[in-house]
Amino acid sequence: MSATDIPRQGETTSPSREGTGPPDVEGCVARLRASLPEGAVITDRQKLRTYECDGLSSHRSVPAVVVLPEDAEQVATTVATCSEHGVPFVARGSGTGLSAGALPRSDGVLVVTSRMRRILEVDIDNERAVVEPGVINLDVTKAAAPYGYYFAPDPSSQQVCSVGGNVAENSGGAHCLKYGFTTNHVLSMTVVTPDGATVELGGAARDAPGYDLLGAFVGSEGTLGVVTSITVRLLRQPERVRTLLAGFSSTDEAGEAVSAIIAAGVTPAAIEMMDELSIAAAEQAVRCGYPEGAGAVLIVELDGPEAEVEHTFTEVRRYCTERGAFEVRSAADEAERALIWKGRKSAFAAVGRISPDYIVQDGVIPRTALPEVLRRIAELSARSGVRVANVFHAGDGNLHPLVLFDSSVPGASERAEEVSGAILDLCVEHGGSITGEHGVGADKVRYMGRMFTPQDLDTMQYVRCAFDPAGMCNPGKVFPTPRLCGEVPGPRRGAHPLAEAGLADEF
Amino acid sequence: MSATDIPRQGETTSPSREGTGPPDVEGCVARLRASLPEGAVITDRQKLRTYECDGLSSHRSVPAVVVLPEDAEQVATTVATCSEHGVPFVARGSGTGLSAGALPRSDGVLVVTSRMRRILEVDIDNERAVVEPGVINLDVTKAAAPYGYYFAPDPSSQQVCSVGGNVAENSGGAHCLKYGFTTNHVLSMTVVTPDGATVELGGAARDAPGYDLLGAFVGSEGTLGVVTSITVRLLRQPERVRTLLAGFSSTDEAGEAVSAIIAAGVTPAAIEMMDELSIAAAEQAVRCGYPEGAGAVLIVELDGPEAEVEHTFTEVRRYCTERGAFEVRSAADEAERALIWKGRKSAFAAVGRISPDYIVQDGVIPRTALPEVLRRIAELSARSGVRVANVFHAGDGNLHPLVLFDSSVPGASERAEEVSGAILDLCVEHGGSITGEHGVGADKVRYMGRMFTPQDLDTMQYVRCAFDPAGMCNPGKVFPTPRLCGEVPGPRRGAHPLAEAGLADEF
Repeated sequence: MSATDIPRQGETTSPSREGTGPPDVEGCVARLRASLPEGAVITDRQKLRTYECDGLSSHRSVPAVVVLPEDAEQVATTVATCSEHGVPFVARGSGTGLSAGALPRSDGVLVVTSRMRRILEVDIDNERAVVEPGVINLDVTKAAAPYGYYFAPDPSSQQVCSVGGNVAENSGGAHCLKYGFTTNHVLSMTVVTPDGATVELGGAARDAPGYDLLGAFVGSEGTLGVVTSITVRLLRQPERVRTLLAGFSSTDEAGEAVSAIIAAGVTPAAIEMMDELSIAAAEQAVRCGYPEGAGAVLIVELDGPEAEVEHTFTEVRRYCTERGAFEVRSAADEAERALIWKGRKSAFAAVGRISPDYIVQDGVIPRTALPEVLRRIAELSARSGVRVANVFHAGDGNLHPLVLFDSSVPGASERAEEVSGAILDLCVEHGGSITGEHGVGADKVRYMGRMFTPQDLDTMQYVRCAFDPAGMCNPGKVFPTPRLCGEVPGPRRGAHPLAEAGLADEF
Repeated sequence: MSATDIPRQGETTSPSREGTGPPDVEGCVARLRASLPEGAVITDRQKLRTYECDGLSSHRSVPAVVVLPEDAEQVATTVATCSEHGVPFVARGSGTGLSAGALPRSDGVLVVTSRMRRILEVDIDNERAVVEPGVINLDVTKAAAPYGYYFAPDPSSQQVCSVGGNVAENSGGAHCLKYGFTTNHVLSMTVVTPDGATVELGGAARDAPGYDLLGAFVGSEGTLGVVTSITVRLLRQPERVRTLLAGFSSTDEAGEAVSAIIAAGVTPAAIEMMDELSIAAAEQAVRCGYPEGAGAVLIVELDGPEAEVEHTFTEVRRYCTERGAFEVRSAADEAERALIWKGRKSAFAAVGRISPDYIVQDGVIPRTALPEVLRRIAELSARSGVRVANVFHAGDGNLHPLVLFDSSVPGASERAEEVSGAILDLCVEHGGSITGEHGVGADKVRYMGRMFTPQDLDTMQYVRCAFDPAGMCNPGKVFPTPRLCGEVPGPRRGAHPLAEAGLADEF
């Protein structure tokens, strides 16, 4: 791609959906077919329907074109071709996202990375692996396991989700309390920027010079470019893992046990909490045999060197008992551990047994605000008559309230939506966040204004404009009021010479 | 500040040193004096000289004006006033940096944060503190210590350096192997962007929605704005700390011990290595009593829960002995621990005893490349006749070669410079970095091109332009060829509509 064949703004190939002309999809497809291997470009309507949504099926849109690149070069070609023809594009991994972050555009290209599944290198000496974006999360661990290593981020979709998708969403998992999110496990990446250029972000060295754009790119939900290779950190498998299940009469008591554990300086690999309604649902679905009559259960998992884990496990048992646990079970082996996790892992699906429909909400609060927020959710629920089951990563305050409703009852889904939104307001009010790990995508753009000031959002949009001035890279996601770059309002505007019409030609 | 009083490009108040008109320093000073408290604006030449350099005194420049703001609002006023008058500005904390990152501009304002030393909040329940940028690093730990907490980043200047400076440089310290850099300990920040707007980056919740600009800002060396408050993570003081000193006959053996420790899955709080020449210097200066005849020493420190530390300490001793350590000492108490650290901490200054002049180099390599790079440094030294003493954070491959010379010998400083630069080439060649923790500043801009492709640098500069389109915020630092925004060359240029002269007015 050279600078000369870029269409000028205002021509019929004008790139942006906010632009003055429509995207030249036809020309784009012709060029893609000429440049890519046979079978890489899909335009058959029936086949395209496969890709109309990701894991959040309430948002649907059939893409105009699907491209299945086999390597980084083909990604660069695809993106450059889109750029040249003013066609917006969206990248998709395995399509397991829960915020419609990979929702296609009907006038655009969907770049699907499912053919890019090579693990390019496993470098045990330096504790890292290099993978293509389509590689399945769990396959990284499978490749590292023979050496006694694993890849830490473990979203519950890890058997099917892709590492590229993990990068886009900055995925966490049950163990992110101790191990952090994807951003803590990516050392460097090769990305194709929205104009088709290939750049390296990060590097082998920690604290590299220049700007750390790795962190900005991870979690940017596909709006800054397409990743083509990812160097991830591998961790040594812990010497010992121990898991306990504690039954409490209330979430307040369970919450106090969590605070006691954290205040003692213990960092468990995971602390999960379930409330009465979600326990009942799990019990009905998978007969996990959780303590009878529990108003809340805690699952606490510790891992690390044997000596440390055994010592700390005794302490954690004690904190649970002191805070009112009426039953504490320790998993004696892998089978018992799996049984303890079974109830938690099935919780979302299990709720389907007790309610025809439900919304999986995803918010975050400071851990210490947990009791207060739970009380307020209970009040909301009582007032509205909408049932809410609560499942959470209690250690880091990531709530997954499940808002139950029956869509066959008139007005029920609207009331559920309202309660669901009010829960997010509670999270923001308590200094938390509108999403813990599922992302903003297309689904939560409407809530961004509740959390960020216009100045905060403008600052992010300036960065988006730095990468994607034409607004062609996953447009419509993350930002509630995406604008043409240069049209971001507010106090920054006047001070931004390039944003002031007519000034740029003096540069 | 409103949009209307921003001077247009090309007027006499044009902002950038690369611009067409000079900065209006006189107007800027008048406005600053009118807006800020008495004594906050310094223009007395004698007083200004105090600020002519930071910790790297080979770069000097007396600022036109020094401003000493007392709070965030005064910082915002100062920056907005600079912006309005097209005057470049540089922020400075305690001035202990080693890369001339806080080097003033003779036509600009130096914003010194030494009056912003309030610790605004210590929130033990949520394990965090909120501080102003001028707060001294060690004072955060002092404020948290009564509760059993501390602030982890510990650069050797921690008794005098500021947290704002730590943010600018993404400072590390001897314990960053286990605890990471400043970026791992900042939860959120309030910053004033180069046009005077105040924005929040990050937040209480982990994995917040939108772009993670916190990571990009930390370590941006003052080129993206001025931080006015920082929320830092506090860590619980470890239950137990144990320190050992091991003597080896060669750096090869010591390097193998480091590899054995890491490969065993142990993460010490610190692993420091010194070679024969640096040991000799330290011995001469502070009589630290390191093992006689050692070609290398390792200092290994473990911290954490008592049970874990005791267990692991025994293992580490064994790895050292197995890899050839002829003497291993364990510190029995705090006094013995201090004695072990004394030699290491005095090493830089001690080199002054054995050489009239020296360059402190700062590079990084993957840990596994250590033996090879050390051999190559020895060859360089032998070939050139320039002596090199090596001190390193061995666990994460951060080298501090001390290049010795005598500036009274004609050509000696040039030869030392040459060897020093060649060492950085070695680091880059082995997949490492031109700076580990001292930053690029004004000093290493000339080396950036050895590490990054033009596309990589352009991508960073686009982000700089997003924050600072007029190029007024610490100009001349980090980027080897800073340009007017919109003039960045390469394949991105044509695809950047705002960068193409005459296109912006179509937006």
